[in-house]
Amino acid sequence: MTSSDKWQLGGRHRKLGAMERMRGVARYTDDLRLPRMLHAKILRSPHAHARILSIDASRALGMPGVIAVITGSDMPTPYGVIPWTTDENALAIEKALYVGDGVACVAAESEELALRALKGIEVEYEVLPAYFDPEEALAAEETINPYARKGNLSKKVELEFGDVDAALHGAALVIEADYEFHGTTHGAIEPHCALAKVDADGLLTVWSATQVPHYLHRELAKVLETPARQIRVIQPPLGGAFGGKSEPFDLEFCVAKLSQITGRPVKLLYTREEVFYAHRGRHPMKMHYRVGFDASGKLLAVDAKTVLDGGAYSSFGLVTTYYSGQLLCAPYELGAYRFDSRRAYTNKPACGPKRGHGSVQPRFAMEVSLDKAAVELGIDPIDLRRKNAMGEDCLTVNELRVGSNGFLDCLAAVEEASGWKQRRAKLGFGHGLGVAGSTYISGTNYCIYPNDMPQAAVQITLDRSGRARIFSGASDIGQGSDTMLAVIAGEELGLPTEDIRVLSADTDLCPVDLGAYSSRITLMVGNACLEAARKLRKKVTQSVAKRWECSPKQVNLVAREAIDMHDPERRAPLVEAFQWAEADHGLLGEVGSYDTPKDRHGSYRGGAIGASPAYSFTAHVAEVKVDAETGEVGLVKIWCAHDCGTAISRGLVEGQIEGSCYMGAAEVVLESHGVNSEMGGLHHGPSLLDYRMPTTLDTPEIEALIVEAPDARGPHGAKEAGEGPLHSTIPAIVNAIYDAVGVRVDDLPVTPAKLVRALAAQAEKGGV
Amino acid sequence: MTSSDKWQLGGRHRKLGAMERMRGVARYTDDLRLPRMLHAKILRSPHAHARILSIDASRALGMPGVIAVITGSDMPTPYGVIPWTTDENALAIEKALYVGDGVACVAAESEELALRALKGIEVEYEVLPAYFDPEEALAAEETINPYARKGNLSKKVELEFGDVDAALHGAALVIEADYEFHGTTHGAIEPHCALAKVDADGLLTVWSATQVPHYLHRELAKVLETPARQIRVIQPPLGGAFGGKSEPFDLEFCVAKLSQITGRPVKLLYTREEVFYAHRGRHPMKMHYRVGFDASGKLLAVDAKTVLDGGAYSSFGLVTTYYSGQLLCAPYELGAYRFDSRRAYTNKPACGPKRGHGSVQPRFAMEVSLDKAAVELGIDPIDLRRKNAMGEDCLTVNELRVGSNGFLDCLAAVEEASGWKQRRAKLGFGHGLGVAGSTYISGTNYCIYPNDMPQAAVQITLDRSGRARIFSGASDIGQGSDTMLAVIAGEELGLPTEDIRVLSADTDLCPVDLGAYSSRITLMVGNACLEAARKLRKKVTQSVAKRWECSPKQVNLVAREAIDMHDPERRAPLVEAFQWAEADHGLLGEVGSYDTPKDRHGSYRGGAIGASPAYSFTAHVAEVKVDAETGEVGLVKIWCAHDCGTAISRGLVEGQIEGSCYMGAAEVVLESHGVNSEMGGLHHGPSLLDYRMPTTLDTPEIEALIVEAPDARGPHGAKEAGEGPLHSTIPAIVNAIYDAVGVRVDDLPVTPAKLVRALAAQAEKGGV
Repeated sequence: MTSSDKWQLGGRHRKLGAMERMRGVARYTDDLRLPRMLHAKILRSPHAHARILSIDASRALGMPGVIAVITGSDMPTPYGVIPWTTDENALAIEKALYVGDGVACVAAESEELALRALKGIEVEYEVLPAYFDPEEALAAEETINPYARKGNLSKKVELEFGDVDAALHGAALVIEADYEFHGTTHGAIEPHCALAKVDADGLLTVWSATQVPHYLHRELAKVLETPARQIRVIQPPLGGAFGGKSEPFDLEFCVAKLSQITGRPVKLLYTREEVFYAHRGRHPMKMHYRVGFDASGKLLAVDAKTVLDGGAYSSFGLVTTYYSGQLLCAPYELGAYRFDSRRAYTNKPACGPKRGHGSVQPRFAMEVSLDKAAVELGIDPIDLRRKNAMGEDCLTVNELRVGSNGFLDCLAAVEEASGWKQRRAKLGFGHGLGVAGSTYISGTNYCIYPNDMPQAAVQITLDRSGRARIFSGASDIGQGSDTMLAVIAGEELGLPTEDIRVLSADTDLCPVDLGAYSSRITLMVGNACLEAARKLRKKVTQSVAKRWECSPKQVNLVAREAIDMHDPERRAPLVEAFQWAEADHGLLGEVGSYDTPKDRHGSYRGGAIGASPAYSFTAHVAEVKVDAETGEVGLVKIWCAHDCGTAISRGLVEGQIEGSCYMGAAEVVLESHGVNSEMGGLHHGPSLLDYRMPTTLDTPEIEALIVEAPDARGPHGAKEAGEGPLHSTIPAIVNAIYDAVGVRVDDLPVTPAKLVRALAAQAEKGGV
Repeated sequence: MTSSDKWQLGGRHRKLGAMERMRGVARYTDDLRLPRMLHAKILRSPHAHARILSIDASRALGMPGVIAVITGSDMPTPYGVIPWTTDENALAIEKALYVGDGVACVAAESEELALRALKGIEVEYEVLPAYFDPEEALAAEETINPYARKGNLSKKVELEFGDVDAALHGAALVIEADYEFHGTTHGAIEPHCALAKVDADGLLTVWSATQVPHYLHRELAKVLETPARQIRVIQPPLGGAFGGKSEPFDLEFCVAKLSQITGRPVKLLYTREEVFYAHRGRHPMKMHYRVGFDASGKLLAVDAKTVLDGGAYSSFGLVTTYYSGQLLCAPYELGAYRFDSRRAYTNKPACGPKRGHGSVQPRFAMEVSLDKAAVELGIDPIDLRRKNAMGEDCLTVNELRVGSNGFLDCLAAVEEASGWKQRRAKLGFGHGLGVAGSTYISGTNYCIYPNDMPQAAVQITLDRSGRARIFSGASDIGQGSDTMLAVIAGEELGLPTEDIRVLSADTDLCPVDLGAYSSRITLMVGNACLEAARKLRKKVTQSVAKRWECSPKQVNLVAREAIDMHDPERRAPLVEAFQWAEADHGLLGEVGSYDTPKDRHGSYRGGAIGASPAYSFTAHVAEVKVDAETGEVGLVKIWCAHDCGTAISRGLVEGQIEGSCYMGAAEVVLESHGVNSEMGGLHHGPSLLDYRMPTTLDTPEIEALIVEAPDARGPHGAKEAGEGPLHSTIPAIVNAIYDAVGVRVDDLPVTPAKLVRALAAQAEKGGV
């Protein structure tokens, strides 16, 4: 880090709050303690599917230190983060739908007493047949979720663009295969935690480890039947989220309700086991793909059929179902495209959004299909992708508008950095390189609930001591959004990030922002911040110009000084310039807002679900060593080149690339989240001992390569970096395994057992 | 309280935060605890005047649990709330100037260990002669305060308006007398307390029970030699202030410095004894007054000579010295006026501003003089005052611009309510009524440090849930300024106060406001708030009008609804109107600023020190019963009519009137703050057992009568209510004593002993 970097857009900035975290003094939700605070615990169903006949809490209520017990009937209004799929209750009312579904909640003087009291609640269940396989569930007569229409189809999307059948019929090569993605979960270090209090004036405050304070605010108002203006949601520093905290959970409703009932603060911290039950992780998908090419390798058509295993509730599943198809049409030009995605309810923890929401699984299918085609056609896999690259400023076959596009540069960067040309297919048996490419959105044009208000807003004031303060609703979930805003504002105002206070994610003090999901914050909140900062810059430069009797345009604000660009000797400390401006204009406070661009029809907002203001692009090369005897895959190195538009803060972008590669790699060789259907739907192992989360020792070397293709719609051209770089990690590794040992496992994760079986099958066929 | 009152300007509103205080859950500064927090204690001088030859803290530093010791030389930069009189150090360096002056500060693991460690600090003193009488101090050769120019004159103001000597020469009656006001102190329930921490990024946060966060912020930056942008000052809820917390104190610098040194949070809570040493209470004044009248009772001239006993430091003394003269020229027309005020340094706790800063003592002298004249001239004391009332929209003899003036209505109100005409001078020996009048400022046109920036600013945003949030720098010290702002904003926006969150007095999050002093907040911050709220109202009514296709002027916002005034059936919930406006305008955030009116010379701001945008007026009638044998004065009842311009919130105004009368009454018959000169300057008794603070049982019945003479410069016409109603309480009681027993005590407080002596002297002269 050079000393001037901290002043610059695109420099390396210390994350705001990083030192507090490093030194262990940041106060996460569970670190908050209030006087007279109660502790709550949730009683969970031992059955995967059971009718609740009765709940008797009288014994629990008689236990010492037990203050209150609530059940589903205390909060009967159903909710759901997507307003069209409100199919969940704060606690189960009629039926429990998976092992771990919450049925009652106790508040007691201590966590231990609350746990003990759970044993004093008697629930009479009628056990019902359970469905663990999505296709079986879809075929079943019985309906799992009581709010679902008859049957277990959670969502179906069938869309066709162009004539797929004709295109495939005329194709020189059709790669047809079944791909399977078993579920994975987020594994944030911080378990979900919520604390509520009702103050003497009736205001309910909920502190929660959430990444969507605004949606939580709305759903609390609905379920508690309390006006939103009487509720405040605060997001303390988060210990990871990755999509796993992007909707309301039972604990938030329970602490709020119990606080309203008891008049005392109530806290609930999930155990690690409960985090696995809360889940909302990546959907298991069964994907049948047919991908057609002409003889030169040109992509003609894709026909994708996908079954999503949704678990017991909808969560964001409506969106997931769209994303499982809609986000596949870049970065390659595609003549025709059809997808048929069906999401099923099953008696398992609900699936939802995980980093790279909905599009990671189809990307795996697509990029492996491309790799197979390259082999069949004898084309270098990078060249095949290059040949099909769609370029910038174009419409995809499903009418997504792509602006800037650095995909070819990403391919070139990983090709060069990995020594692809010299090394690929030349490393000897057991050692291979694989490539893959991908794209992702920078936020979506849709808000989750239909409205005409801005998607993002920022308020900035300047202080006569030479500081700026930013109020933003954006949730910093570790991705560094607070820092990003400080860098953007600092660039306009001549301030280093340390002179900028960012207050975010407090619904009482901050503007509404929709939350940290779909990689929307840098583009959307960043644009709002830029607007507000530019208004302030204008006032400050005007006031300086007035005193210097020059044009405001020749006044620059940089490094805590105002400088005359025509006469760089003429300078004033920025603190003085702020004071001049405050004297001229009054309090220096401005707002900025961002909304997605409206199309020519006015209120309709840009294309299909999945349409985004801008798209990021990524290419990966992975290097693996495979032990053909044990089937163990050793990850040697991952090169990831990511087009984030413009890197607002390089270190943060690199961090996102590294984190994405780490997370994606684990989804290939380690992680699998599911239940045991033969044991009544018990979780495979809801603990960090059983669930195979990678450690640093499992992590390959990662080389992050930033590619900048600035997009006209992003602030300073910025797009996204938090989710895109995960996607092609997975197929790049799978393709590298093929390069190493000549077999493919199309069923993730690639466990040693599967790989050994595949190698044995190949040997039988006379390979190797 | 009617149910609709809470919606209305001028209604009765529950104070924001009142329930939290009532229920004991409000968190004052001393309720804050931080992990690893140290406790600090200050070693204080046992000598009233002593040179510090050496300080040896080595023994203290060797004691268990003692972490650090600092002395004056660790913070050598002098400070002072008034920039022209920086004559104080955080801890004494060269000399200790009064018994209680701080010389060293210890930080230890507990308060007890810190107290014990004080005994381990050895200070070698050279005891110097001490001065306890201001006139002796002024005559002395030695200089008490090392920062003073030679001698002990802290400030001298001599001003003459008109020809006083000629007017007095031609007067039919001149009342000449000496008046003496012994000091009193504030006696806030909450002792001073401060807590500091330095976070990992170097930001110093100081929580302090201060009423001037902005000035504290500035002085901390100066004394700690730390940029202001790296300092944050937060004022938690206050347990009273009354002017006693309106400048920085040693504890704030000490906790900040110790926190910087140790890297740990440090808290210091004054003992009650230390509160008495910190003092900054009402100045003792010796006043020689000559007041001339013509035969009809018309006031011709006042010649006032005043000596102020300032104690060891300047504090606000420069201003006090001006105020002791400048604020006497209303509510009576005065042909000529001269005052000569000299403030002396003495070896006592420093005096400063107490409710009714500087003008309570001269008001006592003036109103007793008027009473004497009424007796001499045989005119009813109310009629005498009526005859001399100056009226509205005029200039005083010393060129203060008076706008609205409800003084005559105040006189009429107390005359009527007290049954004055029927009862005065007719109640029999030992039972009497007295009257007095007064005026006070609504803020001053001067900022304490010269600058062209606004004196007050407010930022308001509207939220789509139907709330407003107000960011204000104003210090709510119990006077209810947060509530006042909510009422003003609510009136414009159609919201009850419960839908408005007010965040105030946090220098990191709020606009700068100069603080709670000189009764400035309602007028100044209120105006800023009104400006911001009106900008928002405009946006909301525009958006409603657009949808209703009508003129914005016919849209009213009231009681959580938008209403078409031309068709009251047409209504929309306000929350919807806010959402329409947010869709049209983006985030609804506006600012408002207030600065004192500039005169025709541009940057010069309105007249002499003491000049205010608007003046409040007050009249009191007091009823007393005096036991002539014991000299005990029984306070029966006080009627106080106060012209506050417009009452924004009636209950709050009445509360201020009652509190002022309570405080003033105690200054007549109970309180006296001073040191014992024969015991080397020891305090008379720095405890609430010795200092005679009144209880509810000592408090007379008080009838608060609100008079409204709206002023064009106030928000909705509002002026002030927090300090004005104290002034004439004192002379009204003194005059009532005369009416009861026919003697006067011109030397406050009127103790039983003084009254018995006066009665005896009168009896000797053949009275009664």
